[in-house]
Amino acid sequence: MSTSPSPGRYTETGVFVCFEGGEGSGKSTQSLLLRDALVAEGYAVRLTFEPGDTAVGKEVRRIVLSPETGDLDDRTEALLYAADKAEHVETVVLPALARGEVVITDRYVDSALAYQGVGRGLDAAELERVARWATGDLRPHLTVVLDLAPEAGLGRFDERDRIEGESLEFHQRVRQAFLDLAAADPDHYLVLDARSGVAAIAAAVRERVAPLLGQALRDRP
Amino acid sequence: MSTSPSPGRYTETGVFVCFEGGEGSGKSTQSLLLRDALVAEGYAVRLTFEPGDTAVGKEVRRIVLSPETGDLDDRTEALLYAADKAEHVETVVLPALARGEVVITDRYVDSALAYQGVGRGLDAAELERVARWATGDLRPHLTVVLDLAPEAGLGRFDERDRIEGESLEFHQRVRQAFLDLAAADPDHYLVLDARSGVAAIAAAVRERVAPLLGQALRDRP
Repeated sequence: MSTSPSPGRYTETGVFVCFEGGEGSGKSTQSLLLRDALVAEGYAVRLTFEPGDTAVGKEVRRIVLSPETGDLDDRTEALLYAADKAEHVETVVLPALARGEVVITDRYVDSALAYQGVGRGLDAAELERVARWATGDLRPHLTVVLDLAPEAGLGRFDERDRIEGESLEFHQRVRQAFLDLAAADPDHYLVLDARSGVAAIAAAVRERVAPLLGQALRDRP
Repeated sequence: MSTSPSPGRYTETGVFVCFEGGEGSGKSTQSLLLRDALVAEGYAVRLTFEPGDTAVGKEVRRIVLSPETGDLDDRTEALLYAADKAEHVETVVLPALARGEVVITDRYVDSALAYQGVGRGLDAAELERVARWATGDLRPHLTVVLDLAPEAGLGRFDERDRIEGESLEFHQRVRQAFLDLAAADPDHYLVLDARSGVAAIAAAVRERVAPLLGQALRDRP
């Protein structure tokens, strides 16, 4: 993987915040808490997620995550996820940012790099090119990595989907990939121990988001 | 588009023949006739097509071609087609070639370059990278382009799907893209006037395929 931070593209309007991490690390909970806190302060917020927050994305999510799909070529999986990203950025993320909203997404490009690149062992440079092309190289102003040992996160579910059913070693590689991405670009990352209390994590996220909010829209009409 | 022929990758076993061309140019008919002729001579033949000749591909085809899908981001469409290609090459084309069969496909990478690249105006170099990555850069030994003015081909259908419903100018750019690809690599292309008689086209294809058959399996067990 190219771990040197590339310039990427950061929007001038709106604020783009991403939550990343392994299964069961609390991304959904923290996304919701950040959304609620910002809405309470009068910000316009769009909470979203990958894969599946568009009509096409729902189809992709169904294909990729269903145990009925069985074996799927690694590149097929990566390209389906990339299609979800392209549609998501173009129809959900960019329009909301253009309106000056705070966009909070549960998973983004780093999940592709971690799960399909490092986890599946696909050519990381080519995979990153595909993901960056799909998203027009749009980068989050901040990515929050909720770090958790896979043993702890996976233990929370009785039924696992295709991805969650991968080996422990797969999920350990994924965890390390998120940490490596964060270490390579600390200005745009916040790594938190997912075992901390829910309120403590939410407060740390809120504090780190604060200086970004100057460009966000308040008092939505 | 990079029209300089790149080295690509040609399998040592089996023979890979592709039919390309616009809507209604007779690709399906000629694919079937070539299949029948080779089977009659004792060759093992796998007739296939893109998009949609795998379980995942059927889902992709349904999403991309259904008028109900409505507007689809151009990159989303290109990535969905690329996912179909990855699954198709890995699970259908390569296994048949490895068995020494003649694989005949109705559409392949050139359709992506022509429809999504030139037709939609996506960045051609990036699009080609994605398509080549999806297919592991596997090239056909021969691509037959059935050339037809779009006015003639599209007139054959009463109901058009999402792609067929594009403008005439779109389909004219697509036609030219196929011709440009063929002109850049004449050793691996055969361009035929689709208005010629069905039997005459089939004979021309059969003649051009003949010298390739040395590596194909005869007398299937």
